Amino acid sequence: MKELIREEVRGMKRYVAGKPVSEVKRELGLTQVVKMASNENPWGASPRVKEAVVRTLSDISRYPDSGSFGLRAALMAKTGVPMEKIFAGCGSDSLIKVISATFLRPGEEILMGEHSFSRYEDNALLMGARVVKSPMPQGFLDLPDMLTRITDKTRIIYLCCPNNPTGSAFGKAQFEAFLLHVPERVVLVLDEAYREYVTREDYFEALDYLPDHPRLIVLRTFSKAYGMASLRVGYGFAQEELVEAFQKVMDPFLVNLFAQEAAVAALEDEDFLRHVQEENRKGKAYFYEELQALNLPYVPSEANFVLFDTGRDDLEVFQALLRKGYIVRPGSYLGLPGFLRVTISTMEDNRGFFEALRQVLEGAVSKNAQTLR
Amino acid sequence: MKELIREEVRGMKRYVAGKPVSEVKRELGLTQVVKMASNENPWGASPRVKEAVVRTLSDISRYPDSGSFGLRAALMAKTGVPMEKIFAGCGSDSLIKVISATFLRPGEEILMGEHSFSRYEDNALLMGARVVKSPMPQGFLDLPDMLTRITDKTRIIYLCCPNNPTGSAFGKAQFEAFLLHVPERVVLVLDEAYREYVTREDYFEALDYLPDHPRLIVLRTFSKAYGMASLRVGYGFAQEELVEAFQKVMDPFLVNLFAQEAAVAALEDEDFLRHVQEENRKGKAYFYEELQALNLPYVPSEANFVLFDTGRDDLEVFQALLRKGYIVRPGSYLGLPGFLRVTISTMEDNRGFFEALRQVLEGAVSKNAQTLR
Repeated sequence: MKELIREEVRGMKRYVAGKPVSEVKRELGLTQVVKMASNENPWGASPRVKEAVVRTLSDISRYPDSGSFGLRAALMAKTGVPMEKIFAGCGSDSLIKVISATFLRPGEEILMGEHSFSRYEDNALLMGARVVKSPMPQGFLDLPDMLTRITDKTRIIYLCCPNNPTGSAFGKAQFEAFLLHVPERVVLVLDEAYREYVTREDYFEALDYLPDHPRLIVLRTFSKAYGMASLRVGYGFAQEELVEAFQKVMDPFLVNLFAQEAAVAALEDEDFLRHVQEENRKGKAYFYEELQALNLPYVPSEANFVLFDTGRDDLEVFQALLRKGYIVRPGSYLGLPGFLRVTISTMEDNRGFFEALRQVLEGAVSKNAQTLR
Repeated sequence: MKELIREEVRGMKRYVAGKPVSEVKRELGLTQVVKMASNENPWGASPRVKEAVVRTLSDISRYPDSGSFGLRAALMAKTGVPMEKIFAGCGSDSLIKVISATFLRPGEEILMGEHSFSRYEDNALLMGARVVKSPMPQGFLDLPDMLTRITDKTRIIYLCCPNNPTGSAFGKAQFEAFLLHVPERVVLVLDEAYREYVTREDYFEALDYLPDHPRLIVLRTFSKAYGMASLRVGYGFAQEELVEAFQKVMDPFLVNLFAQEAAVAALEDEDFLRHVQEENRKGKAYFYEELQALNLPYVPSEANFVLFDTGRDDLEVFQALLRKGYIVRPGSYLGLPGFLRVTISTMEDNRGFFEALRQVLEGAVSKNAQTLR
């Protein structure tokens, strides 16, 4: 039986997702559980999004528009990028798979950060490509180091910015310097899933670089700041010729109808987005304050989560927090033992989390200091 | 730029979906348009499904369960097949892609019917595999012929039953005879997307064959009889070892949360399903009657659509029907020039369609006789 399955698939691991609330309640017999593990939006989604979902019920037995016409038109209106350069899928995950399948031949290479989004790697392995990783000092992508790792076989470079799971972002000057040195034959994917949360002032508008960089692909999502993770819509921008290739690779009905309608509604509610951004900014300041008080080093975050060093066995801290009803993401699952990645949530949940963390750290969790290189 | 894109992708065509109602209204300035092109359920979905969608709004910002736990448990309860042998995806389309990526190496072959579901072919080409097609006399899969086309390179056989786009199905005796002769090294995919509509009495329960046929994969869907095409849920049954491989290939959040909850609710409403089956049976009898009266040959259907021979240029008939507000699927898009594939709908729409068809056929459409071999 094993021989039937492609060798590339046999070598892959299954993705481990954050535990769902229902599962933790069931397993630990808890009634109150707060999930701060998957960088979901604690403010839900815009009321307009919910109205769009209810409105779409009348078309429930219909196939979605295979061209996501309305959604792409709304994204064009918002960004000024022509529709022909816009594509959408079932979350950014699905777009990473489509990009891999479009470009990667066996033996070719992708280049990514050492602590970056694991789906780049999984989908490259599926295509028989090799994965080259660049070290990430202090949790930051080292763009000059990445340039030195480009070879004749490099086909895709993934820049996750802000980076998941570390939360760091680079600024405009660094991006421009990098762009100058990426060879013509390399596809550059800038994954901006957390873009709406960026607060550093020297951040850039990636879409401005599209006309002069025909191999640049920008990915964004409705799963984070727009609060639509349940519905699965990621989208992207690229040259028309690449978008046409993606549309051949993609399943025709990858973006469900509810997601298409809801995403259009989400783009109309700028107040909701501003509210989320403002609350996240306040929550981040609170996280920093508490982590400094606890003397726990953290990576400065441009996202809706903070990665910090517990100086302990993170799986033990994770389990102890679980028993107190807080689900977080242990660094050991992310190749960062000792660390925790925690989603910035409502102030009530942020306070509850740090109270629980304090109790756990004062308790009997083993010290197991790690440092991020 | 072209050289960046894999040769396999360059050779592929984009899938042409049925025109959405909104597009036809826009293009032709019509207010009343009936879509009978995509085999969607004209009775919508169960009220319980709609309730589940509304209930799920409170979790809109949450990721779906990556293991589709609740849905797989409900499918286990309904079918008796253990959860470990059940998998789900974003429509059957996505599962065909996952199956292709799991098994197909460059140069290997898939075997399918000449007039069968085009996504088998597209996803095989994406993996660099070859597509071998067996002729389909009178629109039926010729199982004995397929056996003769198995080679050392055959990796997957796709049996679409009932077959899309012809509507035909084979019975138990034919299936069992075929199973006996499929070599061990070949994966057999039985795609039963239209299964709930079958009326022939010698049909079989495919799941009964799973224990003795470890390379059998059965695909089903919520898009047709359950009326949930908008939400995108297909599912399947296979040996645990294969399901584990699929889960590594699949994006973790392929089945959106609304779809998971809605599918569980759909399984609870057997009355809705029976209503759909009964109405479809009546509609099919009416189609046969009208087609006989018009003297247009058709393929006996076990699905919710009928394929028939117009004896004219199908694209002209299609355009003429469009102008009367009826969207159907022209055979020319399906490799069956001269034919139309029309979804069995409510009796009101069925009657309206045949009235329109009569007018069109009496009109000035060119004769262009074709026969299905």
